[in-house]
Amino acid sequence: MPSPDLPFGSVKALVFDVFGTVVDWRGSIIRDVEDLARRKNLRVDAAQFADAWRAGYAPTMNRVRTGELPWTKLDALHRRILDRLLVEFGLTTLSETEIVALNLVWHRLQPWPDAVGGLTRLKKKFVLAPLSNGNLSLLTDLARYGGLPWDCILGAELVRHYKPDPEVYRSAADFLDLKPVEVMMVAAHLIDLRAAKAVGLKTAFVPRPLEFGPAGKPELQADASVDLTAKDFGELAERLGAV
Amino acid sequence: MPSPDLPFGSVKALVFDVFGTVVDWRGSIIRDVEDLARRKNLRVDAAQFADAWRAGYAPTMNRVRTGELPWTKLDALHRRILDRLLVEFGLTTLSETEIVALNLVWHRLQPWPDAVGGLTRLKKKFVLAPLSNGNLSLLTDLARYGGLPWDCILGAELVRHYKPDPEVYRSAADFLDLKPVEVMMVAAHLIDLRAAKAVGLKTAFVPRPLEFGPAGKPELQADASVDLTAKDFGELAERLGAV
Repeated sequence: MPSPDLPFGSVKALVFDVFGTVVDWRGSIIRDVEDLARRKNLRVDAAQFADAWRAGYAPTMNRVRTGELPWTKLDALHRRILDRLLVEFGLTTLSETEIVALNLVWHRLQPWPDAVGGLTRLKKKFVLAPLSNGNLSLLTDLARYGGLPWDCILGAELVRHYKPDPEVYRSAADFLDLKPVEVMMVAAHLIDLRAAKAVGLKTAFVPRPLEFGPAGKPELQADASVDLTAKDFGELAERLGAV
Repeated sequence: MPSPDLPFGSVKALVFDVFGTVVDWRGSIIRDVEDLARRKNLRVDAAQFADAWRAGYAPTMNRVRTGELPWTKLDALHRRILDRLLVEFGLTTLSETEIVALNLVWHRLQPWPDAVGGLTRLKKKFVLAPLSNGNLSLLTDLARYGGLPWDCILGAELVRHYKPDPEVYRSAADFLDLKPVEVMMVAAHLIDLRAAKAVGLKTAFVPRPLEFGPAGKPELQADASVDLTAKDFGELAERLGAV
């Protein structure tokens, strides 16, 4: 086992991006949509549907970030995108109850295979929290669904700003009463790590090669914003000396 | 085993007062202060000290509730009270490091003997969260210290209002995306349950006869604000059908 990286001796808490970094949103949504299609006898390309839903995420959130929309929980943003997609994909026979249930697929996403084991090891040494754009109820449901052993739930809703706004990253240190350098952001996305680094957090990059499916173009190479790279949460625990 | 109370079939989440209801603040502080006194060769009535510290809590918090003080985390309010008590009790030889450590005793309070077992049962059926005046880092540390299996941390700091301000109780339902009637407040104190009831939450009263020590005067009788009374968290789990 490699010895722990001493430059990270200051770190007391790890905060995690969730969608893509901790959970496999794409695979989970594909399975859920395929299941719905079978039950309702609908024809839909579930992978294309999942990708389109996720593609609506950044632009819709940016309307909140720029002030065009008032603060809106991610559940409600997901619903706005979903309403558009149901028309575009011709899925116009679903009832309101079925649409509500489909929108809540974001509350039941499967963790990557290494996630729970890695987090369980890391929790012995560090305070663990998600730092996600998901609303608090979504993150709470995900934790119960996937057995994610968070110590508390942090993120966008608590400060009514979406990542990568600096307020979100600063709030992690503020809520935990830590210095920024005592908090490490863990993410599969460099945009997240760059914004975390800019306010003084430590950063760990955990690439997720399969996040966007077999034809996806995930980020695989660290850049200057990254303090530590690990191939999964198990290696992250080793590198940080959490046995 | 008694069958679950059907009137509570709507309840999906339980939120808990913490100081006195989940953890034994008084016994924990007495032990900590006695230990400090031994190490530093100080003479202090640790029970009197614990009671005086807690007695400063409501008046200091009310200065925030009335707007006399801006929003201040409970850790900082505890420190203001502590600074006064150190003079009153003649404990003027402590270093700043020792005072900081003493103030953090509120982050390492022992759960009542039934708390962890009862919460573990309740968690199988309900979302569980503290709804406390303690700041988020305090509640997170308490959970790690005592093994409290919360799903998320709610409370005063997230809305910058102290209980019994109605904003705190409302925020529990808002953050969890539940109706007030789907949330049950659990507390050993009727002031908490009355305020929860006033905004539509369900209420459970769990008296804690020893909270204020052998000479204390705890509340033991429910009033009209109480929907359900249980002698401890084990009985609460039974009454709510959480096996």
